[in-house]
Amino acid sequence: MSGNTFGQIFQVHTFGESHGQALGCVIDGCPAGVIWDQEIMDQELARRRPGQKNSVQSEVVTQRQEPDTVEILSGVFGKKTLGTPIAMIVRNEDAQSQDYETIKNQPRTGHADDVWSKKFGHVDHRGGGRASGRETVSRVLAGAVAQMALLQLAPQLQIFGFTREAGPFKLSEQDLNKIENHPQAKKEIDQFVGRFPSQQASQLETLLQEAREGGESYGGLARIVVKGLPAGLGQPVFHKLKADLAQALMSVGATSGLSIGEWTKSFETKGTEFHSGETSDNYGGQRGGISTGENLMIEVAFKPTSSILETAKKGRHDPFILTRAIPVLEAMTAIVILDHFLLARVDKI
Amino acid sequence: MSGNTFGQIFQVHTFGESHGQALGCVIDGCPAGVIWDQEIMDQELARRRPGQKNSVQSEVVTQRQEPDTVEILSGVFGKKTLGTPIAMIVRNEDAQSQDYETIKNQPRTGHADDVWSKKFGHVDHRGGGRASGRETVSRVLAGAVAQMALLQLAPQLQIFGFTREAGPFKLSEQDLNKIENHPQAKKEIDQFVGRFPSQQASQLETLLQEAREGGESYGGLARIVVKGLPAGLGQPVFHKLKADLAQALMSVGATSGLSIGEWTKSFETKGTEFHSGETSDNYGGQRGGISTGENLMIEVAFKPTSSILETAKKGRHDPFILTRAIPVLEAMTAIVILDHFLLARVDKI
Amino acid sequence: MSGNTFGQIFQVHTFGESHGQALGCVIDGCPAGVIWDQEIMDQELARRRPGQKNSVQSEVVTQRQEPDTVEILSGVFGKKTLGTPIAMIVRNEDAQSQDYETIKNQPRTGHADDVWSKKFGHVDHRGGGRASGRETVSRVLAGAVAQMALLQLAPQLQIFGFTREAGPFKLSEQDLNKIENHPQAKKEIDQFVGRFPSQQASQLETLLQEAREGGESYGGLARIVVKGLPAGLGQPVFHKLKADLAQALMSVGATSGLSIGEWTKSFETKGTEFHSGETSDNYGGQRGGISTGENLMIEVAFKPTSSILETAKKGRHDPFILTRAIPVLEAMTAIVILDHFLLARVDKI
Amino acid sequence: MSGNTFGQIFQVHTFGESHGQALGCVIDGCPAGVIWDQEIMDQELARRRPGQKNSVQSEVVTQRQEPDTVEILSGVFGKKTLGTPIAMIVRNEDAQSQDYETIKNQPRTGHADDVWSKKFGHVDHRGGGRASGRETVSRVLAGAVAQMALLQLAPQLQIFGFTREAGPFKLSEQDLNKIENHPQAKKEIDQFVGRFPSQQASQLETLLQEAREGGESYGGLARIVVKGLPAGLGQPVFHKLKADLAQALMSVGATSGLSIGEWTKSFETKGTEFHSGETSDNYGGQRGGISTGENLMIEVAFKPTSSILETAKKGRHDPFILTRAIPVLEAMTAIVILDHFLLARVDKI
Repeated sequence: MSGNTFGQIFQVHTFGESHGQALGCVIDGCPAGVIWDQEIMDQELARRRPGQKNSVQSEVVTQRQEPDTVEILSGVFGKKTLGTPIAMIVRNEDAQSQDYETIKNQPRTGHADDVWSKKFGHVDHRGGGRASGRETVSRVLAGAVAQMALLQLAPQLQIFGFTREAGPFKLSEQDLNKIENHPQAKKEIDQFVGRFPSQQASQLETLLQEAREGGESYGGLARIVVKGLPAGLGQPVFHKLKADLAQALMSVGATSGLSIGEWTKSFETKGTEFHSGETSDNYGGQRGGISTGENLMIEVAFKPTSSILETAKKGRHDPFILTRAIPVLEAMTAIVILDHFLLARVDKI
Repeated sequence: MSGNTFGQIFQVHTFGESHGQALGCVIDGCPAGVIWDQEIMDQELARRRPGQKNSVQSEVVTQRQEPDTVEILSGVFGKKTLGTPIAMIVRNEDAQSQDYETIKNQPRTGHADDVWSKKFGHVDHRGGGRASGRETVSRVLAGAVAQMALLQLAPQLQIFGFTREAGPFKLSEQDLNKIENHPQAKKEIDQFVGRFPSQQASQLETLLQEAREGGESYGGLARIVVKGLPAGLGQPVFHKLKADLAQALMSVGATSGLSIGEWTKSFETKGTEFHSGETSDNYGGQRGGISTGENLMIEVAFKPTSSILETAKKGRHDPFILTRAIPVLEAMTAIVILDHFLLARVDKI
Repeated sequence: MSGNTFGQIFQVHTFGESHGQALGCVIDGCPAGVIWDQEIMDQELARRRPGQKNSVQSEVVTQRQEPDTVEILSGVFGKKTLGTPIAMIVRNEDAQSQDYETIKNQPRTGHADDVWSKKFGHVDHRGGGRASGRETVSRVLAGAVAQMALLQLAPQLQIFGFTREAGPFKLSEQDLNKIENHPQAKKEIDQFVGRFPSQQASQLETLLQEAREGGESYGGLARIVVKGLPAGLGQPVFHKLKADLAQALMSVGATSGLSIGEWTKSFETKGTEFHSGETSDNYGGQRGGISTGENLMIEVAFKPTSSILETAKKGRHDPFILTRAIPVLEAMTAIVILDHFLLARVDKI
Repeated sequence: MSGNTFGQIFQVHTFGESHGQALGCVIDGCPAGVIWDQEIMDQELARRRPGQKNSVQSEVVTQRQEPDTVEILSGVFGKKTLGTPIAMIVRNEDAQSQDYETIKNQPRTGHADDVWSKKFGHVDHRGGGRASGRETVSRVLAGAVAQMALLQLAPQLQIFGFTREAGPFKLSEQDLNKIENHPQAKKEIDQFVGRFPSQQASQLETLLQEAREGGESYGGLARIVVKGLPAGLGQPVFHKLKADLAQALMSVGATSGLSIGEWTKSFETKGTEFHSGETSDNYGGQRGGISTGENLMIEVAFKPTSSILETAKKGRHDPFILTRAIPVLEAMTAIVILDHFLLARVDKI
């Protein structure tokens, strides 16, 4: 089935096991004439990758060194998309599956190895297969292409994400306002450990370094903001913008919840208050499942990473997944939004 | 596009405006041989309908009297499904669109009339069209069929929902345990105003009656529990069980968020605690996007209803949508689970 | 599965058994703003129906009297489509399933009752169920809506079909030229028995009347012509225009083959001749699976009807199916073409 | 859109331009546990490739030397499929796009370069892009996997194709019977030039050699036979077995028509004769769109190749495309049949 396909017009088909030959995706339905910007692609891959130069976060995320060089196999010619399927691959060069040999017969706590085994009968025990976080590299590839297309369709559009809560740390209202109104929010966020744009970022760094050594891990709350989105995107009734975003974002590993606007505020406020605003932020930029032209705001909760102590000793332990998950959430958001831009082309005769 | 289609194998196509001729659905992909149980269908329609006999809640929900009699047009013969599409309709007999004539040119606050108008150019102003809560009757029809099929595939399966928070009221841990372990949970819950299985239900009733008169409204938090679910349901990577549930549940009008397991607990707990349990409730019954065999637990947040004061005077005002939304959430859950039961049939050669 | 769904953007979901309550379709993906023309709808239903006033053919087709009145349940308001699903039904008023009671346990030669029974375990023996020709009424409903949309998108477009061979009779080259260049081809064709625009039509009538009485039946060859089609429709590689037309037309019951351009000519001509023409009719209006801007020409072969002698006595025997099949082929062609018009909107950024 | 996707459960997504980096496919929906047989894969690629050792046909087909080595990127581990997407690529090593530089601005007669250009605005002029015959290598990859799965599901199944008409040559009834009843039909057919299992094969060879030099080309008629197919495959009403086969086979480049059973016989025979047989070959193994358990027989017509004289001098001219098209037709047939085997698993509760 199309378990590994996302999107209705801009369809993304992903593939690849974490310790197989390669991961990648095929995009079917990318319009012809999108100007290819390899820089966007490389940059997004770098943002997802551990060990970035521009940030102190390198120390506190998973230690696997992945060059993550993309090879474009089809669909692009003369610096433009052809309208044909775009196939892209990233090879697994640092697979080290020998590390995992030892845990072959010990299912890892919190991992999905055992449920996959029940399901398919036959499992790639070399490190999570499709359930590994490495799967998300395919999403980032597709998201980068979506970004290129959106640059032409809606140059004013901005999609950025950041960590709002990281274990015991929380962004203050002041930090929140500052980052959301920053003209270069995405770049700014990348400067902070854990993509947590707060003065507490260095404290977070200390916590995560300890966690790394001690086999501890932390969950968190990410916020995705979309600015400059026109009204009218979203398809009733099952492909409401919020429903497609929910599927897109909840399909990312380790997510545990999602909120359009703020979770508690959305259901604990009385109706007369909730609906009173002139431009109501409470709606998170959507009403009736359709974008209103206001800023979109979505929060995504992540469980603490499951690769704790035992495996931490042998495999590569990442005590806080949001740092790397945020570019993935941005990628999925870009894919959903582009898809709805294209869907809107057939709304009227 | 397939904006009004849900499901991969058990595909539900819904249709109908709130003030048009009829609403309904066509199910394509329901296996042949499902024993037709009209009682389940009638009961589920009654549970969604305002003015139920078995409950005091009749007073505090929307006053529209809808007989909601379903007519089966195809796909069923000799008390069994034929394997052909099952078409079902419910007529709109009490449309009263004249009430809405007066608001034709006044977009209703918080409603989606304006965004739909931007989108399609042309709008049915008679009461929300497809954006109306009345759309959910089609989901309940399909959910009832899914229930019939699940009765044969997994007789031990139980799907039930209840209100966990209603405006200022919250279920206590004790109430929570009591209802989740009740052998007849679904029937029991139906006895309480607002499907809020608490001694505070009568206080809630008072609050809602006041809200109705005063044009106030309240949001809330629903919890859906699935018991007896086998391990191995869910498809990597975009059709993880949690991702499909997220799309299904977030496609219901007025939802504002969703959580697998408890929202705050899922990301504020340290990894060593979170992953320590023997049977970990924290996972909400899923790991790696696949069911584990444990109970599934999902929470869905609902914004306060938007039809406040002005329209309350003319139209039908519902101050608390969860009462009627819960059967809809149960229906969508049943559809997702049946679909994954069928998908699992093609997992292995 | 989506066995009863056709189309990618303009998606048609059909339902209904020949002796059930009703047949119909739900169209999801019809753009908003299509001007509703009930006359087109009624006319197309009449053209498919036996017993038309405007033609002598009434005597020689199936004797079942079906008023075939369509009821529009949703998606249309104020004489325009809303962009929401269009649900339409036609009730089975003259079902007479008692006629078929007697043949309940005698599988009818050439019919599909036995294979359906093997497949689904459970069968509606009242007259073919979904395998009956009556199923095509749903296609005509959808085709009429496609026609309405095409009237706005491509007013110059003409789609018409006729019988080119009927049992022993064949259209002469002269007849062929005359009808293909007739400015009102569709109306003109409707004047002839068997939609066979030839002076031999009256001889065909005699033959068919004898066949009806004697339990004989005849196959034939239909030709579909599309004029005024712009270049550039069709999607590589599996949704080439010819591939989608092939699926659409070969999904009609009793078809046995299909040809883009003329069958024998297409593969018995040498390349130097075949490709020599200035405007090459040989391509049937398509190259590389994409329309060229020339006239489209497709031929569809039909087996002789299977309801011969024994059943002829009891049921309703139609000795020549093409008369009624041609409006169905036209409908399917209109659906495919509209779908590709909409798909072409997302070809370029 | 999903223009490059084929199949409902066993979904094949293909990609690649004829002169790009690589071609390939991703299969999503192949069940886990299929025993991987690399020999089948290599053999099928060899059968499609020009210049086969085991046959004299090497001289008369296109001269491009393609090693066509497949690389499996994902979805296979320990000689079994994992249930995850299977990604496979074949690199274009002998692209020689300089040959095509000279024809950059001269649209090639009969080719699709001009219509693609109108469609997408932007074209890969290096040799047909996705419209090139080279695209079919992806289909052969997927077909080989389908064959592996079918070996486990239906070991008795045989799918083979051959040339029934090649320009002026036709298989005799005797040749036809001989090959259809040959226990090793597929291997036997491969021994003949043009996959034309006749004593006239050597005459055909002479004709094709002259055609190659003189810039002539020939069309032909291929027949595909499927033996050992169980009854009950096919989905009403749009995914009848014949409809899916029609789409699958008519999506292959250069096809001009398709017939279930024999073309002329199917519509020129009277009903009483046509339906008289005990086991009726006339039905081509299908009734009501569903397999009957009898042999399936389909004929596919191919236009003469379009790369005639002018391009013949520069590019690689193939005067008769059926030799290489037959493995592609077999591949598409295997994909359709496997898909319907899997679909049948959800027919009944």
